[in-house]
Amino acid sequence: MDISAVTGIDHVRLSDDGTAVVILDQTELPNRTVYLSLTEAGEMFDAILKLRVRGAPCIGIFAGYAMYVLASRYPETEYAPFLEHFLADKQYLNSSRPTAVNLSWALQRMEGIVLANSEKPVSEIILLLKAESVEIHEEDIRMCTAIAEYGLTLVKDGDGILTHCNAGPLATSRYGTALGPILMGHERGYKFRVFSDETRPLLQGARLTSYELQKAGVDVTLICDNMASIVMKNGWVQACFVGCDRVAANGDAANKIGTSGVAILARHYGIPFYVLGPTSTVDMACPTGDDIKIELRDPDEIKKKFYAEPMALPEVKCYNPAFDVTDHSLITAIVTEKGICRPPYTESLAALFK
Amino acid sequence: MDISAVTGIDHVRLSDDGTAVVILDQTELPNRTVYLSLTEAGEMFDAILKLRVRGAPCIGIFAGYAMYVLASRYPETEYAPFLEHFLADKQYLNSSRPTAVNLSWALQRMEGIVLANSEKPVSEIILLLKAESVEIHEEDIRMCTAIAEYGLTLVKDGDGILTHCNAGPLATSRYGTALGPILMGHERGYKFRVFSDETRPLLQGARLTSYELQKAGVDVTLICDNMASIVMKNGWVQACFVGCDRVAANGDAANKIGTSGVAILARHYGIPFYVLGPTSTVDMACPTGDDIKIELRDPDEIKKKFYAEPMALPEVKCYNPAFDVTDHSLITAIVTEKGICRPPYTESLAALFK
Repeated sequence: MDISAVTGIDHVRLSDDGTAVVILDQTELPNRTVYLSLTEAGEMFDAILKLRVRGAPCIGIFAGYAMYVLASRYPETEYAPFLEHFLADKQYLNSSRPTAVNLSWALQRMEGIVLANSEKPVSEIILLLKAESVEIHEEDIRMCTAIAEYGLTLVKDGDGILTHCNAGPLATSRYGTALGPILMGHERGYKFRVFSDETRPLLQGARLTSYELQKAGVDVTLICDNMASIVMKNGWVQACFVGCDRVAANGDAANKIGTSGVAILARHYGIPFYVLGPTSTVDMACPTGDDIKIELRDPDEIKKKFYAEPMALPEVKCYNPAFDVTDHSLITAIVTEKGICRPPYTESLAALFK
Repeated sequence: MDISAVTGIDHVRLSDDGTAVVILDQTELPNRTVYLSLTEAGEMFDAILKLRVRGAPCIGIFAGYAMYVLASRYPETEYAPFLEHFLADKQYLNSSRPTAVNLSWALQRMEGIVLANSEKPVSEIILLLKAESVEIHEEDIRMCTAIAEYGLTLVKDGDGILTHCNAGPLATSRYGTALGPILMGHERGYKFRVFSDETRPLLQGARLTSYELQKAGVDVTLICDNMASIVMKNGWVQACFVGCDRVAANGDAANKIGTSGVAILARHYGIPFYVLGPTSTVDMACPTGDDIKIELRDPDEIKKKFYAEPMALPEVKCYNPAFDVTDHSLITAIVTEKGICRPPYTESLAALFK
């Protein structure tokens, strides 16, 4: 699991002696590279809550290691009190960000190990927990690797690629999703020219994507979101790669605010627009994008955050949606770890689950 | 010339006793309302250079008042030394921002008054200079007022209007250009709902447009540039109004970076897209947008400006064009003080100059 082989960034792992979860504090990027070694439930909770560790798959990986580290330090050697302690910590961590699906999913998997092995000694259960946490991480790497392989077939050496927000290794594991084909291609000697939208208001493109790609040695150029049009017009973009937070059964895709605008520009300029994500993001119970609720966030993210002083009057209203929905008609293909889905998505997405 | 009747902001004028130019320092907005009373050539030069006064028409108005104030304080009472002093100051102010057309245009008009009245006493020339500076200001108000009147015919009470960057009174005189129909309509009791793109990287939408509209009592909502797509998709926008820095003979329009993206989104969602500006902005010597040179600016405007600390690694490259060109095919109409031009623009723009 040498993630650093791709980007030079090793952002979530067990410590060498296995007694702590080591994370790269993402709130300190890009200015400071601060690794935190976490052993207590309180500081793990805090790391998720304060976005020191972020990106749904990455939070899942973190949660697996966290439960192993916590369990390995329990004084209880009998199963019943061990289980009680485990469930209390699990419930506590799960309450840090209730909306992140991967968090509860990973915690549930770890709990499943404890429940399924009640006849075994606690010391053995702890070893099984370690193996499960490593497996969660490795599964994510396999998923990302498959997405990267499929995505890489969609571009060629020398292409310009535009991306929005951050769906790189920092948000997942090795390779990432939207950045997967770029990083894998880079490893194989492809020369891509990547344009990273800064992605207002939280600047994940500036703070994280341009950071990851620069560290990996990829040719990356940071632009403001409103510069995507001129970059495309200049002929510098041959494909757009973006991640996704939820994909409806008809192919409508919710992703970071601004993604739908990139898709419309890409259509205007005749550039293919690809959405990349694991099949776990495809929600077949959600018929269309209209059924996806859009989270509205604090206006001060637009007016104040990151600035030395406010950039608008306190009384000025803001509209601050965290996501938008890209209509399926604007999406050239949806790339998953099981393969590339093409329109009509109602058929190609359904086929993933057969 | 009670500009404050519209926005409550009186941003460039002669002092009551006529001995100083009073400006609202735009670099301090929106956090501090600082008026500067300028009497010396050095501080006037500085005000233009440091963007305390900005917006091409507004700089022209300022330059007229500045030359009057300076001339009224000259010790010279004979024509020849008076002219010599005047030309030296004119040349000095003109060197503050060589690319702003309105600056040299206004200075030239003021010089014309001095040259055309060489037979008159200096005291009388000074009075004529005062009258000319007032006339420059009033002409701008008439121009903006005419643009606002024409623009207002394109929208109706209750409409949602999206604008990008700042083409309001702060950049011109009363009403502004792109904001003209909004402010004039507001005076007449229209209820508009305005969406102001923050306009990265220099945030003229957040710092100036939302400020002006809020002060005028207009219903304004600030959004990040990448939120224009969802706002249009929500059905909240019935028209887009933007200014222009140069319009080519075929109708291609250069304006603040991001404008072309707004036009493409508007086309996608079936929303009319209007460019508003004086005929002086139409460059019949420039055949198409391809002939307009795009200014590239400092990467640190994207990575550092306004922030408490940098938002990207120092080694990350940026592409930072100050303008982009909106293709004439995306523009519903171009609104000037002489009337509304419709496609084909090669004909309708040429007709303006016949």
